[in-house]
This record gives sequence, C-alpha cells and structure tokens, in this order.
Amino acid sequence: MTRTIVASATREVVIGFDQPFCVIGERINPTGRKKLAAEMIEGNFDTVIKDALEQVAAGATMLDVNAGVTAVNPNETEPPLLVQTLEIVQGLVDVPLSIDSSVTAAIEAALKVAKGRPLVNSVTGEEEKLEAILPLCKKYDVPVVAISNDETGISQDPDVRFAVAKKIVERAADYGIKPHDIVVDPLVMPIGAMGTAGLQVFALLRRLREELKVNTTCGLSNISFGLPHRHGINAGFIPMVIGAGMTSAIMNPCRPQEMEAVRAANVLNGTDENCYNWIKTYRDYKPAEGGAAGAPAPAAAAAGGGRRGGRAARVGAGAVTE
Amino acid sequence: MTRTIVASATREVVIGFDQPFCVIGERINPTGRKKLAAEMIEGNFDTVIKDALEQVAAGATMLDVNAGVTAVNPNETEPPLLVQTLEIVQGLVDVPLSIDSSVTAAIEAALKVAKGRPLVNSVTGEEEKLEAILPLCKKYDVPVVAISNDETGISQDPDVRFAVAKKIVERAADYGIKPHDIVVDPLVMPIGAMGTAGLQVFALLRRLREELKVNTTCGLSNISFGLPHRHGINAGFIPMVIGAGMTSAIMNPCRPQEMEAVRAANVLNGTDENCYNWIKTYRDYKPAEGGAAGAPAPAAAAAGGGRRGGRAARVGAGAVTE
Repeated sequence: MTRTIVASATREVVIGFDQPFCVIGERINPTGRKKLAAEMIEGNFDTVIKDALEQVAAGATMLDVNAGVTAVNPNETEPPLLVQTLEIVQGLVDVPLSIDSSVTAAIEAALKVAKGRPLVNSVTGEEEKLEAILPLCKKYDVPVVAISNDETGISQDPDVRFAVAKKIVERAADYGIKPHDIVVDPLVMPIGAMGTAGLQVFALLRRLREELKVNTTCGLSNISFGLPHRHGINAGFIPMVIGAGMTSAIMNPCRPQEMEAVRAANVLNGTDENCYNWIKTYRDYKPAEGGAAGAPAPAAAAAGGGRRGGRAARVGAGAVTE
Repeated sequence: MTRTIVASATREVVIGFDQPFCVIGERINPTGRKKLAAEMIEGNFDTVIKDALEQVAAGATMLDVNAGVTAVNPNETEPPLLVQTLEIVQGLVDVPLSIDSSVTAAIEAALKVAKGRPLVNSVTGEEEKLEAILPLCKKYDVPVVAISNDETGISQDPDVRFAVAKKIVERAADYGIKPHDIVVDPLVMPIGAMGTAGLQVFALLRRLREELKVNTTCGLSNISFGLPHRHGINAGFIPMVIGAGMTSAIMNPCRPQEMEAVRAANVLNGTDENCYNWIKTYRDYKPAEGGAAGAPAPAAAAAGGGRRGGRAARVGAGAVTE
C-alpha cells in the first residue's frame, strides 16, 4: 500500500489510498492576489497568519506555502521571503506544509528550516527541473509533487501525460527516491474548454494508482474555470476523483460546499471510520443554514430511509443475510 | 454501447453510459407516506398530480409510479389503483414512466394501458418473480429493473449479488430479453451500518458495466440512512456512482443539492455537451440563495481561476500543446 508520509514538528500525516483525502490548503499564495503580494513584500504577514489559522480551522490536512510575489529578481528575493513565511506558518499551526516555489534556491532555503517532513511542490518532467529538484528531495529525504508536463508543455493527450509522470518516477528512482515519495499531479484541464477533461483525469488517476502505484494530487478548482457556480462543479468533481483514486488536492478548505464533498467522499470511500468525522461535523446541521439550496419538502423529510417500499425498507432495516 | 430505451407517448429517453444520468423521480409512492396512501385510497390524486408536476419541473428524466397503499388484499385492490394513477400521470406529463409494484397483476394491468415504453420495476432473482415478471416484459417488449436479491435475501457479499444479477440477465435471455433491457439494481446498503457499502457498490457497478454490459440503478437515498445531513452524503454519493458507471437512480429530484450533484457529474462525465444544461441552470446562480453552506470569502471569490500560480495559470489560459 502506497504511503506518502509528511509531517510537521509534532504531527505525522499519511497520504494513501486507505486514508482520508488529504486537503492541501492553497490560500497562502500571492499568485493572483495582488493585495497579499503587496503585504508580503512589505513584510506584513497578517493575511498569511489569518489564512493559516482559517484553513486549519476549516479542516485543511496540510498547508501549501508559496511566496512567489513575482518581484524583480525572484532568485534573490524569494528564498528569504519563503523562509520567513514558512517559519511564521510552522510556528503558528501544527499541520505539515507544502513548500511551493518555482525557484530552486527558495525550495532549498525552505527545506533547511522546515520542521518535520514537508512536501516539495514541485518538479516537472523538464530536464532542468528534474536535475535541480530531485537531488534536493533525496538530500532532505522529502516527498515531491510531480507535475506531468515537460519542455513541450502540457499535452492534451492523457497517454503523454502518463508517460511524463512515469519518466519522473523512473528518474526519481535513479536518485534513490521511492515511488511512494512521488505525488503525481496528472494536470486537470478546465471542463468548460475541454469536454473530455473529466474522463481524461479519471482514467489517468486509475492508471497512476494501478500501474505506477503513486499518490496523486491536483489543483482542484481548475476543473471549473470559466463556468458559473464553480463550487457546484468542484463539489461534484471531488467525489469523482476520490472514487477514481486521487488521494490529495490543492484546494481552498474555506469553501464549505467543497469540504462537505470531501467529508462525504471519505465516508463513502470507507476512510471515515464509523462516519465519526461526518457525524461530528454535521450532527446538528440545519438545512436552513445552507448546504441545500432551499428547504426540503416536509413530506419527503419525514419519510426518511424507508422511501423505496419493499426494497429500501428491507435494506434500510438491515435485513441482510450472509 | 448499451442503450435502454424508454418512452412516453411522445418522448423517447435513452439510458446509457454515454447519456446524461437518468433521474427516476421516486415521489409517487405511498410506501411510508400515510397521508398519500389515505388520499389514494379515497381516490384523491391531488398529491400525485402535484408530485408529478414538481418532479418533472425539478428535472426528473422519468417518474416512478407506485400505488402500493398496502390496503387489504393488494392483489385485487392494487391493479385498478395503479392503472388509475398511471393514467393520471401519463395524461399530465410527457416523461417515460416506471411501473413499480410487487403485485404482478398490477404490473400487467398497468402495462396494458401504459403509453410508449415504460420500465417495469421490478424483478428479483427469486424463482417466482422471474417466472412471473420476465414473460410480461417479453410480451410487452419493455425493459425491467433487476434487483440483485433472491430467496435467500440480500447478501452482504457483493460477489453473491453480482451472481444474482448475472442469473437474472441469463434467465431473461432465455425469454428472449436482451441485456440492454435489464437495468440492474446492485442494492445499496446504508453506509452508517456497513462502512464498506460504498466500496462494494462502486466495485459492483464496474463489474456490471464491464462484464454484464448492463445499465444500472439504485434506490439512492438508502446510502445515507441513519446519518445526519443525509443530503450531503447523497450529493457525494451521486458523482461517485456515476463515475463508477451507474446510469440511473430512483431518487427525489426535488432536492436541489442532489440534483446539482447530478448536473455537475453530467458535466464532468462528458454527457452535458458544452456544459449547456449546467450553464442554463446556474448562469445566474447566487451563492447567497443556497447551494453552498455559507457565503464565500470575498478574497477567495475574487481570486477566481488563476489560483495555483504558474500551473493553474498555464492550464487555465489554455496554453495546451499537442
């Protein structure tokens, strides 16, 4: 059984097929957040602190930490800023962290100060990246996100994306890194632009699980890019990728609809033992507070589990034989 | 490609792997609805009419019609009541119907007056049922729901349930009924009582699709029996069963959260071409009206599609190469 172990100073988390879905909080990332970027450049970490606390409170399993403020000369400015951000976050919350940067020097600087066993985000199939990132992962004994694109870009052909993932896993092996320390991102296309994007990723996830035996992740909300009511698409996508074998995602845990989908899928996938987390979270749930768009019809609510006559009544009543 | 064709007088619907998920509205069923049962016994069809119109308006693909008021002597009372109910419903709405009864005489009486090509609900693996229902399906050339239990009850072992389904498909073939006219219900256990219920049904659905090549259905809400916030579990279950190959479900289409999950899964499964139905339904969706449990954080909402930095931006921008 594939187990990717990540850890903070005090807490170990396992990413795996038999584990609750690993929610990697995406919020601490100045990309596309001009206000946050400006704050971080000024040395103001108020939003970083708020985002860290809120995401953990909302149920994030891990936090991604990115300091790509895209200032001039990132090779010099990003390493100290990522270190500073990481140290603030790991001093504040006890979840494992994902070190997210496109600057190799920033990743190494962060690895030097990171407590526990962080996840490196990321390597690609590009030669330059492979040669820069994999030795670091070996040196610091940390797992890495492997994004299935290479010098030619992102292929629309899922077989090519699989081949890139396979190449990264094989190259990692050359460095002595085991497949269980590679978390493959098969790359999710927006379904609004490519109608087969969902079917592609479901098929890829099954192959990655069965053939490469690796854990997987993705930038989840990309699937709904350009569509109205994106949370609804995201919330439908989560159970589907979990059913197809995805074991983590980089996403916003502060979205109740998406987190509800994660929790439901954990129940249904058998990783929320005795439905403990579901019951704890929704024991006192009132439909009027949200969750369902509109209050349920009283008659249907009252009918409860015995709705389908003989069949449902039999199953619901537990009249089950060996 | 497996195609189960059902029809009303004027409208044909295909149930199939490449089709939008077929939502069979469950509401017209007096089982567990004392008030409705009492009304129907009195010849009052106001609720039936209301339920028919509401379910179709909510997006039901088909309607299940059950008249099992469990009065004395159902073999005599149910046939005329089912006929009357069916005629009212088919005079009112133009979706295909599912004739739902445990009384063979009621099913035959309804088949005599049904317009189009209804679905018979249901046969089981019980000898008596097989011998009663299959000849009717052949005689009237209609598809049938096959529930995978037999004289020994409902097995907890999914291999046994698969074997029962296979037996029904084979027996149907003896009567000249093709597999594409069998819609198998693999039976969904409540996840609160059996933690493996989800994994069982996902595995069964894949086998039914790949080995028997049949369409499938289930009494959907049974999965959440006994748990708090059942709609959340149901809404997570729908994308997972669709991803595993389920092509229809008997469910309540008047639940917005469940129907949103169906629509999202259709988009993601590639059966909502160009996301037409999703966009039509949610173009003007406002989170405040429901759907998400709580309003989104403004900052996160503003960040939109470009959240994941280089990766998301590249994918989202469509910088995709062959």
